[in-house]
Amino acid sequence: MKKFINAVDTVLAETLDGFAAAHADIVSLGGGHKFIRRKALKPGKVALISGGGSGHEPLHGGLVGFGMLDAACPGQVFTSPTPDQMAEAAAEVDTGAGCLFIVKNYEGDVMNFEMAAEMSDGVMQVVTNDDVAVEDSLYTTGRRGVAGTLVVEKIVGAAAEEGRALADLKALGDRVNGATRSMGVALTSCTVPAAGKPNFEIGDDEMEFGVGIHGEPGRRRAKLAPANAIAAEICEAIASDLGDRIRGNALLFVNGFGATPSMELYLMYNAARAQFEKRGVTVVRSLVGSYVTSLDMAGCSITLTMLDDEMAGHWDAPVHTAALRWGM
Amino acid sequence: MKKFINAVDTVLAETLDGFAAAHADIVSLGGGHKFIRRKALKPGKVALISGGGSGHEPLHGGLVGFGMLDAACPGQVFTSPTPDQMAEAAAEVDTGAGCLFIVKNYEGDVMNFEMAAEMSDGVMQVVTNDDVAVEDSLYTTGRRGVAGTLVVEKIVGAAAEEGRALADLKALGDRVNGATRSMGVALTSCTVPAAGKPNFEIGDDEMEFGVGIHGEPGRRRAKLAPANAIAAEICEAIASDLGDRIRGNALLFVNGFGATPSMELYLMYNAARAQFEKRGVTVVRSLVGSYVTSLDMAGCSITLTMLDDEMAGHWDAPVHTAALRWGM
Repeated sequence: MKKFINAVDTVLAETLDGFAAAHADIVSLGGGHKFIRRKALKPGKVALISGGGSGHEPLHGGLVGFGMLDAACPGQVFTSPTPDQMAEAAAEVDTGAGCLFIVKNYEGDVMNFEMAAEMSDGVMQVVTNDDVAVEDSLYTTGRRGVAGTLVVEKIVGAAAEEGRALADLKALGDRVNGATRSMGVALTSCTVPAAGKPNFEIGDDEMEFGVGIHGEPGRRRAKLAPANAIAAEICEAIASDLGDRIRGNALLFVNGFGATPSMELYLMYNAARAQFEKRGVTVVRSLVGSYVTSLDMAGCSITLTMLDDEMAGHWDAPVHTAALRWGM
Repeated sequence: MKKFINAVDTVLAETLDGFAAAHADIVSLGGGHKFIRRKALKPGKVALISGGGSGHEPLHGGLVGFGMLDAACPGQVFTSPTPDQMAEAAAEVDTGAGCLFIVKNYEGDVMNFEMAAEMSDGVMQVVTNDDVAVEDSLYTTGRRGVAGTLVVEKIVGAAAEEGRALADLKALGDRVNGATRSMGVALTSCTVPAAGKPNFEIGDDEMEFGVGIHGEPGRRRAKLAPANAIAAEICEAIASDLGDRIRGNALLFVNGFGATPSMELYLMYNAARAQFEKRGVTVVRSLVGSYVTSLDMAGCSITLTMLDDEMAGHWDAPVHTAALRWGM
């Protein structure tokens, strides 16, 4: 295992200490290392809280700040955070307008956020499930929540900043999730520090279509193919799942899994954009980079969100987090 | 070779097409694929032009835009751009106040930028050489220019935006370069698409201290060590090279080489910060991420820039590029 670490047991705490020190203008740590919180809370604003296993950075800690999350609760690598983390975060960042939990659809996350919601007052939840690859997989009943979660957090975060009420934000989050589809492909596996070996085996000439962000199996194992063919298969899966809804304006988000060079992500963006434009989509917003990662996995996912004007406006609204920043 | 590509010959063009499409609000392509230029030029401002071999993205194309570069000239992967690329870029983005070329110290780049300067009027140059690892190496006489180049481009870019004259910008660039030191470490090699195999061999339990951003040999091959020990060796190399100058305020920049997860970069940042603070440095600005990469190399570099108030102010000034954006 080739990693920059000191000891398996201290990886998460040292990472969080480094993150908090590097971004001390935006965030601070709460409850020891239980959550990352926005430094300056905004009284009267609904608090947005997300979280999940670590190893997907910058999701979610890198999305805490003005215009996105008020807190993020990091579990150990690929392990759900515990209910007390979310409950303590909610107690600290709720300024009286309630909390919206944004939860990726994994059984552990759903259960633990649900328990935290029961421990807290005034909580509603949005569960993301944008991954079209498979129904019911390792760790998940139904579809997995993946990179589309960032889109939900950005758009709902902007609406929360405007002072929208909890129930409105819940409805908006569900609507964005419903307009969002993703699918990924892995070229390599990823190695959890505590395991010390790759999460799954994959041949030198193979890729995994529809891989999960923890290395869960996807739709099929295939031989390596040209980027255009890979993009065609992923975009077709997204398009056929969207059906009639694939028309008009969209956000195209090409996401690296952690070990994929920038050049390859832009090349895939180019290929995916052609696929969607061929189907009549107008790509009006774009995001390319490694935002929802799987440790050191080489691979990428493609996310398409069909945008209405309200959603596009919230996407454009100012944001100031470690990983996304514009307009301020 | 596991990469998202269609064909070796089209990698660069497809990458640039994707980049230009994703960031059409900021950049456009010039001369076919000869250079990436800032979409909206500012009459009377000195034009900043950089470039070099591709494979280091987001450097330099991702740094074109308000507050940084006016143009970036991409060579083929790990290959210098040709003089006509820089000359054409200069002809297109020089609005009359002259051009400053910012050049990483590699023989091919230095020669080709020099030829372009001779083909153009009103050009001055800053050559960066922040890498303390080795003197004279593969491709380089003297020290290599690495991640510190980004710091030079940001600070000089802000000063250019303020309307400073060419000679002032040249002097500022030289001053920032002189206040900046870097060193890197590789855990893995990197694979150039046209070669199809790793640039160098490295054992499963080895790392290369002082590696270059093209996989050039560094100071020594060593057995894997804990992150704190790695940070200690790199920071000591930087500190001893700075000598008496290592006091006061600094920018600490931990840079991933392309395949290093965010968690590990923040863990290394945490370790490096402790090393420099122990030596009396006050870290007042931070940057953590994969900005000056080596394709799919796992590894990182640490850069320290000793900041005076003018430099800190320019670092904070608004910037709007694909890879760095704040204040607007």
